[in-house]
Amino acid sequence: MTVDLQGMGREARKAARLLARTSSDQRASAVRAIAEGLSSNTDRILAANGKDCEQATDIGPALLDRLRLDEARLTALADDTRSVADLPDPVGQVMERRMLENGLDLSRVRVPLGVVGVIYEARPNVTVDIAALCVRTGNASILRGGKETRHTNAVLGQVISEALESQGLPAAAVQGIPSTDRRYVRELLRMDQHVDMIIPRGGAGLHRLCREEGTIPVITGGIGICHVYVDSTADLEAAYDIVHNAKTQRPSVCNALDTLLVHEAVAEQFLPGLPARLPGVTLHASPSAAPFLPTASAAEDGDFDREWLSLDLGVRVVGGLDQALDHIAEHSSGHSDAILTGSEDHAERFVAEVDSAAVYVNASTRFTDGGQFGLGAEVAVSTQKLHARGPMGLEALTTYKWVGRGQGLVRT
Amino acid sequence: MTVDLQGMGREARKAARLLARTSSDQRASAVRAIAEGLSSNTDRILAANGKDCEQATDIGPALLDRLRLDEARLTALADDTRSVADLPDPVGQVMERRMLENGLDLSRVRVPLGVVGVIYEARPNVTVDIAALCVRTGNASILRGGKETRHTNAVLGQVISEALESQGLPAAAVQGIPSTDRRYVRELLRMDQHVDMIIPRGGAGLHRLCREEGTIPVITGGIGICHVYVDSTADLEAAYDIVHNAKTQRPSVCNALDTLLVHEAVAEQFLPGLPARLPGVTLHASPSAAPFLPTASAAEDGDFDREWLSLDLGVRVVGGLDQALDHIAEHSSGHSDAILTGSEDHAERFVAEVDSAAVYVNASTRFTDGGQFGLGAEVAVSTQKLHARGPMGLEALTTYKWVGRGQGLVRT
Repeated sequence: MTVDLQGMGREARKAARLLARTSSDQRASAVRAIAEGLSSNTDRILAANGKDCEQATDIGPALLDRLRLDEARLTALADDTRSVADLPDPVGQVMERRMLENGLDLSRVRVPLGVVGVIYEARPNVTVDIAALCVRTGNASILRGGKETRHTNAVLGQVISEALESQGLPAAAVQGIPSTDRRYVRELLRMDQHVDMIIPRGGAGLHRLCREEGTIPVITGGIGICHVYVDSTADLEAAYDIVHNAKTQRPSVCNALDTLLVHEAVAEQFLPGLPARLPGVTLHASPSAAPFLPTASAAEDGDFDREWLSLDLGVRVVGGLDQALDHIAEHSSGHSDAILTGSEDHAERFVAEVDSAAVYVNASTRFTDGGQFGLGAEVAVSTQKLHARGPMGLEALTTYKWVGRGQGLVRT
Repeated sequence: MTVDLQGMGREARKAARLLARTSSDQRASAVRAIAEGLSSNTDRILAANGKDCEQATDIGPALLDRLRLDEARLTALADDTRSVADLPDPVGQVMERRMLENGLDLSRVRVPLGVVGVIYEARPNVTVDIAALCVRTGNASILRGGKETRHTNAVLGQVISEALESQGLPAAAVQGIPSTDRRYVRELLRMDQHVDMIIPRGGAGLHRLCREEGTIPVITGGIGICHVYVDSTADLEAAYDIVHNAKTQRPSVCNALDTLLVHEAVAEQFLPGLPARLPGVTLHASPSAAPFLPTASAAEDGDFDREWLSLDLGVRVVGGLDQALDHIAEHSSGHSDAILTGSEDHAERFVAEVDSAAVYVNASTRFTDGGQFGLGAEVAVSTQKLHARGPMGLEALTTYKWVGRGQGLVRT
């Protein structure tokens, strides 16, 4: 199947221009129409999804679970979509307005980014999520879902198009690439004339590909090698709770704990009791931690550069705050890192020097999340530093424009 | 000469960590020390610059003028540097702070980006400008100047290092690449582990290279194909003034006018008088404009996609606002575009639909400038949409960090 991706790009750009003229209410209605479409097309969507699940014989049970939709999940997805319609709209917000000495009435106004490209894998709910978030903020989108989801995505694409058109918006505002051939990923990544931002939602390899092969600004993120540092003055009872929460509440996600660093002054007091507080967790101890953890495995090369995504935890004893900061500077992915300490000075140094999207003092790394942060929606979690950092809400789908008004005004 | 660019990157990263611990006053003092260093090393700097100018036999007079320093220019540069020290510091600003329902005391705090790479050409003042702006905002920088400026830059680099060290800051906070071999440009563009942002200050080719070859987020911009659209309800006397200002005040800069679009209803009234109002300007008329401009040249293929940077102006008559918007969507570089109109509706449509960094109503495109916008400094002018758009002040050299504080807080 040959896809005219350049043509899709041109259509997306045109749709973006039309979206720039729409009102916030019109976009909210379109999002609600998408939600209605999900409800009224339940049978069609589940039939297509059933086909995808049947054909997905070579993926593991975890991925299959992410792929599968049922009536309850579809209802939840429709509800989530409706709540996107109700979110406050960042578009049109006047960020600042000043009358300049030169006579210019200058405003900085939030506007849609334009066209957003999203590359993702098996989860069909991402198709609906991203479509809704982009429509809400007046962005056109080009979606490239995984091949496992192709039947579901085809039907979802039709449902979304019908919803958009029912509200007078162009169907090209949300376009899915109707082929999962990888060459179209590469082509998309270089369409900088038509696409303003790429959001990859997948593993480290996909993010690397987008940076290396692409010419479009890309939001990298989603990889969390997260640290908790237990300082000599930490409340050790609270530390057990936080480590337990950060490691075990949901080990498969990016804000879960990967490496525990412990000040040598409290290692003897804290570490021997740790295994009992982390049932089911395999500890991987550095040589400095091993003497305090006789039942732990020995940490291997690279263990401190791994995002475990499982009930495994690297443990290292450090000489103090400086060594902890050095370790984090070398190994953190810049996602979420925490210090547990009774010292305000140490807390402030940790906050200033750890170069991560989210830095915590006496709290779990698990809080890094759009919902927990009260952003209402989460487009992605960025671990890069430009444009957006950490959990990205609707604002991250906007840029701004300077608007200058005069009455025949010239520069002198 | 072999340069250990990776080593420079590691040193820059280390310096950035030290800068993250400095106070705003300390960074301001370091910037003032750079200004003092320029004044007290006038002879050394001018001697080196003299050598560069002597050797620059193959560059034109305009470039040679940009390269040359004299006592007056050096004094002005020192004064500009002092004024950077006095600018309000964005670093540390708390953008928002909320106590969340989950108990987390969450702030979003402005922090330095980290390490900034800058690639530029003949102008030695860029070396000092960027060094001062980066130090002020707590960023380390790696500078790659043009080969024409290498003697001047070597001495400026020493002066800056001495100034930094005199204030207890690491010399590695500002590093110049001591070779102008192009392979180091390519290497720099892929050092994403050590460099957080690339700012190219040069022509379209350099910007393209940074996007195509690089893996680091890049701020593209500086290319302005700018439009003025004279609507049927425009005040035509004011229109002559604005077109004159936008085209002739400083034709060599990016916010100068390139293309004039005129509504057909006022073409006969407006265009015949235009040559007399633009003495010295060569008009390049489209077939639709030619009948009203008998003395103009015929516009050639590509003339509407040119940034003239000279006293040339493309002119086209359009059927109305829609055609003007179509023309701008196709040809604008997204820098600065203006509508001259008496219609509020048309003004609002133009503002909403023209996808450019700066959009003007009844004002000259020449206002797009950090100084004119009151930003105090101008790092660059961005025509991309992520992170920063239009004139970039100190804020564009920062990112933010989420800081969550609790007292043994876990996610439930």
